[in-house]
Amino acid sequence: MSPELARLGHVALETPDLEGSLDFFVDAVGFEEVEREGDTAYLRAVDEFDHHSIALSEAEEAGVGHVGWQTRKPEYLGEFETVLEDQGIEVTWVDAGKEAGQGEAFRFTTPTGHEFEFYYEMEKPDPPAERRSKLKNKTYDRTTTNAIAPRRIDHVQLWDPDANDFRAWLTEALNFRVQERYNRTDGSRWGTFLSANGNKIEAAVIEDEEAAMGPALHHIAYKVPSADDLFDAHDAMNEHGIPTDGIGQHSISRGKFLYVRDPVSGHRIEFNAGGYVVFDPDWDTIEWEEGDLEDRQWIGQIESKARVEY
Amino acid sequence: MSPELARLGHVALETPDLEGSLDFFVDAVGFEEVEREGDTAYLRAVDEFDHHSIALSEAEEAGVGHVGWQTRKPEYLGEFETVLEDQGIEVTWVDAGKEAGQGEAFRFTTPTGHEFEFYYEMEKPDPPAERRSKLKNKTYDRTTTNAIAPRRIDHVQLWDPDANDFRAWLTEALNFRVQERYNRTDGSRWGTFLSANGNKIEAAVIEDEEAAMGPALHHIAYKVPSADDLFDAHDAMNEHGIPTDGIGQHSISRGKFLYVRDPVSGHRIEFNAGGYVVFDPDWDTIEWEEGDLEDRQWIGQIESKARVEY
Amino acid sequence: MSPELARLGHVALETPDLEGSLDFFVDAVGFEEVEREGDTAYLRAVDEFDHHSIALSEAEEAGVGHVGWQTRKPEYLGEFETVLEDQGIEVTWVDAGKEAGQGEAFRFTTPTGHEFEFYYEMEKPDPPAERRSKLKNKTYDRTTTNAIAPRRIDHVQLWDPDANDFRAWLTEALNFRVQERYNRTDGSRWGTFLSANGNKIEAAVIEDEEAAMGPALHHIAYKVPSADDLFDAHDAMNEHGIPTDGIGQHSISRGKFLYVRDPVSGHRIEFNAGGYVVFDPDWDTIEWEEGDLEDRQWIGQIESKARVEY
Amino acid sequence: MSPELARLGHVALETPDLEGSLDFFVDAVGFEEVEREGDTAYLRAVDEFDHHSIALSEAEEAGVGHVGWQTRKPEYLGEFETVLEDQGIEVTWVDAGKEAGQGEAFRFTTPTGHEFEFYYEMEKPDPPAERRSKLKNKTYDRTTTNAIAPRRIDHVQLWDPDANDFRAWLTEALNFRVQERYNRTDGSRWGTFLSANGNKIEAAVIEDEEAAMGPALHHIAYKVPSADDLFDAHDAMNEHGIPTDGIGQHSISRGKFLYVRDPVSGHRIEFNAGGYVVFDPDWDTIEWEEGDLEDRQWIGQIESKARVEY
Repeated sequence: MSPELARLGHVALETPDLEGSLDFFVDAVGFEEVEREGDTAYLRAVDEFDHHSIALSEAEEAGVGHVGWQTRKPEYLGEFETVLEDQGIEVTWVDAGKEAGQGEAFRFTTPTGHEFEFYYEMEKPDPPAERRSKLKNKTYDRTTTNAIAPRRIDHVQLWDPDANDFRAWLTEALNFRVQERYNRTDGSRWGTFLSANGNKIEAAVIEDEEAAMGPALHHIAYKVPSADDLFDAHDAMNEHGIPTDGIGQHSISRGKFLYVRDPVSGHRIEFNAGGYVVFDPDWDTIEWEEGDLEDRQWIGQIESKARVEY
Repeated sequence: MSPELARLGHVALETPDLEGSLDFFVDAVGFEEVEREGDTAYLRAVDEFDHHSIALSEAEEAGVGHVGWQTRKPEYLGEFETVLEDQGIEVTWVDAGKEAGQGEAFRFTTPTGHEFEFYYEMEKPDPPAERRSKLKNKTYDRTTTNAIAPRRIDHVQLWDPDANDFRAWLTEALNFRVQERYNRTDGSRWGTFLSANGNKIEAAVIEDEEAAMGPALHHIAYKVPSADDLFDAHDAMNEHGIPTDGIGQHSISRGKFLYVRDPVSGHRIEFNAGGYVVFDPDWDTIEWEEGDLEDRQWIGQIESKARVEY
Repeated sequence: MSPELARLGHVALETPDLEGSLDFFVDAVGFEEVEREGDTAYLRAVDEFDHHSIALSEAEEAGVGHVGWQTRKPEYLGEFETVLEDQGIEVTWVDAGKEAGQGEAFRFTTPTGHEFEFYYEMEKPDPPAERRSKLKNKTYDRTTTNAIAPRRIDHVQLWDPDANDFRAWLTEALNFRVQERYNRTDGSRWGTFLSANGNKIEAAVIEDEEAAMGPALHHIAYKVPSADDLFDAHDAMNEHGIPTDGIGQHSISRGKFLYVRDPVSGHRIEFNAGGYVVFDPDWDTIEWEEGDLEDRQWIGQIESKARVEY
Repeated sequence: MSPELARLGHVALETPDLEGSLDFFVDAVGFEEVEREGDTAYLRAVDEFDHHSIALSEAEEAGVGHVGWQTRKPEYLGEFETVLEDQGIEVTWVDAGKEAGQGEAFRFTTPTGHEFEFYYEMEKPDPPAERRSKLKNKTYDRTTTNAIAPRRIDHVQLWDPDANDFRAWLTEALNFRVQERYNRTDGSRWGTFLSANGNKIEAAVIEDEEAAMGPALHHIAYKVPSADDLFDAHDAMNEHGIPTDGIGQHSISRGKFLYVRDPVSGHRIEFNAGGYVVFDPDWDTIEWEEGDLEDRQWIGQIESKARVEY
């Protein structure tokens, strides 16, 4: 029996100006700062119990530290280490607490060059009393603060010049399920939409046509309840003087989106509404063929190809 | 040609504890305090340009000062004075600026005992720079504050033991149009839903079965965009420890509602979503007959009969 | 005292293929066909009481018949005739019933070449029993049919190579109020957003840079309740194989939009959510200056400049 | 390693009048009828791929046939049989296809008397061509039919005079996780909110104070996207002359609800919006203590205690 992942948990990001980036993440977007440790701020969304879903560190330049995945059981950490070692991939163990709030973990580089972290334990700290919701099944009182306040991390989009190798490795070595994919008529594949836990898309792997670019993070998506929240997010960005990067809806994943980038670091957040969850363990991959979407079954588009490398 | 009113503009309320009531109106509900003058705080909703839609004054006990109506043209003020004098109703002129932000006005008591104020001019002050929206057609930046933030005043509900006299007088003397009404089989009428400007219900006149009560204000309704905002308003009240007074939808007016009262003064705000506007000058009154709604075409109900007298 | 208009009431459209266009207007979009008379189909939205807001006629080619405006009082019809005659504009009277459901009316050509119709009376026929809502203040039962079903006509956008003459004439001769406008630094004006009734934008007048085009109708906007309805409308268009023409939000008017055109006639419908109403008779025109919106305070855009001439 | 369930899959219901009940389930609520076999109609929601989530059979009187759960892997069927046999519970195997669309399954009675069915395979039939969505990741084109059209099955609420025994057995024998629970000060528990798959509440187990009643199904909940859909559902019920059973929001689960019962069989559907999903394998049960909710942190309530026994 192979080890299994439970979910996408957090992303470690680097910025050349921590305070400047917090203007974006905290003041404009509405993340909560849970803890500051040295040059790293730990952020979570208002409806998250975990210690953080973003670890934002000051560094020479903007970059991606790692993408963090929680295992389904504590013992799967060691089992995954064996799986990776069998493939000649070396893991680096990280002590509990080194990344604030997090238990023992290890990091490694995937064969095509993405930086991943696996862990099981993550603290669920209570918010400060004045921010704690009176409802026990909510974290923050979100009625007196930022009107966007995205709710929880949803997925990452990863670009890779070797996207086909990367997605094959995710399914074969790590047991990711393919929820949807888009195949070109020449046999190549533009995009693969994978799930670690089998319930929803957690990693979109996109073929990067600029082969000179290394593997990169295109965006981190956070859930908002409705399409009106996308427009409210656009309002909030306007009020903060931050340009947005496109509104619309993908046919693949059925996600309604608004993209916006931290002006300081270039890291991009997707506000995402809609989509769907799958609780069927026997899901059949949705196979889009080139041409299926030619008649514009999607609407709107992102207006920038920027992405940030590790 | 008879003078015409333009709209319901504001309501003057009295509270035994101004600061306590502002905890409700400003902190919990999200009104903006525009000006403080002596024991009176002038409040408006985030999407209002007028100086205030609520004037909240400290007094011995909770009460209603007056309901303020704007005339359609400045010269209608004098014409309405004549109309009222012809009926033997004495008006009391109020100098410009006595009620902050407001031009010359007069007040009077309606035949069944409601206190009204008529005026034409009202200032439209800019918010403080740090609260001003970057969009010229919005007043406040509502993206960084209270998540409810009702948008604009919509209607008042007035209870009267002589409701039929009151509504007849509104239509005959003041040219209110009846948008909807609910007739009982015994020929009496439970409710009349009137419009000063002909576009939407601005005054609901309800027969008060407790004849011992004087004419009273049951609630002031403010618009929110959607039904989800009603639930968000309920969340906000919970987080502030304020009980709510019922959620649901009226068949008459099609308004979706959440009621809540200021714990200090008992004044009730309705958060109202839905409803409809009428731009047809030739509207036919919607006539509900007793029995039309017996099969529960409405849903939910208000759980308290409390109202506040003048 | 000058005569006043009450509102935009309907638009007469011409199509080269009536049945083909009804596939769009009725089957895809969800208008109700109220009456068919010869080659004209009379359509209304599900939440309209008036006989029609679109009169769709088969003709040699696609065109705009007229834009219909209801006067505020019956006697204003004659008064407007005098106003127009004083300007040397000839009106053509149309008998009651010639346009189905409509009382006596007259048509005329504005100085820059738009075709207008003025009328006061319009029937409010009941829907067929099986389509009648059980609620007296609704027209159609909209719970068993088309999921978009736009609710009511909102505004027209008119393009004109002589836009400045046209908007000046609308305000001076017809008493339209300017709710918002966008001025260029060279003193010219790109757009003027006018209201016949003073409550909301009913005519957007846009300068057509292609001076070779005659005056034209760019789109007719219908209200839907929320931004999610815009995405639902996009879904519906997809399911009917009809491409859409852009989704987003205007800063001016605050309207959220989805545009789509009848594939047969090219007539464009805007599904419109948001926006705002004004009941203040003393409204100050919102003055946008070139540059105000340079930092993209709007989002999304229409992807086609197509419009249909009279 | 113990076998695991994947999810709540379907419920088998009995009605004294199949056609009458289909007026409710199909015409009023908007379920799709996938197949009819003898006296059983197989229904699914518009956003479900599975063959059915309700199997509705004509019988002498209204009743509940069974609650169907899908296992996480095919081999878990046999492993669960062993688990149950070890407890002295006899299972009855059902051939593939006996319940249309379903693979091999077994049924059994829980110790407190609920009828359960376990299975792994379920067909995912395509809708008829004229109802098939053009988008490959949707089942039905939902733009031309019923405006409610709930999306997917969410949870069941089960009442039991021995609720504490029942919920203990669910966690111990079947590995259900407790997502939330409500404990009384006397040590008893009013409600337990359990998850088969660990992602969301799938079974709410409520203590039935009328001990004379046997174990029963109170309602089946289906997801709708927003609170406005709850009001739309209420409209739809009105238009079909079907009374509703309460609107509001639970604090526990955070679900916004509208309840309605099939007038023929008494089976109750909950339209449910909001709520939350949990992808954290290390979730801490939310512990509500009596008194936590005394200050009305919920709103609205169901107005009937009716439930249907097996």
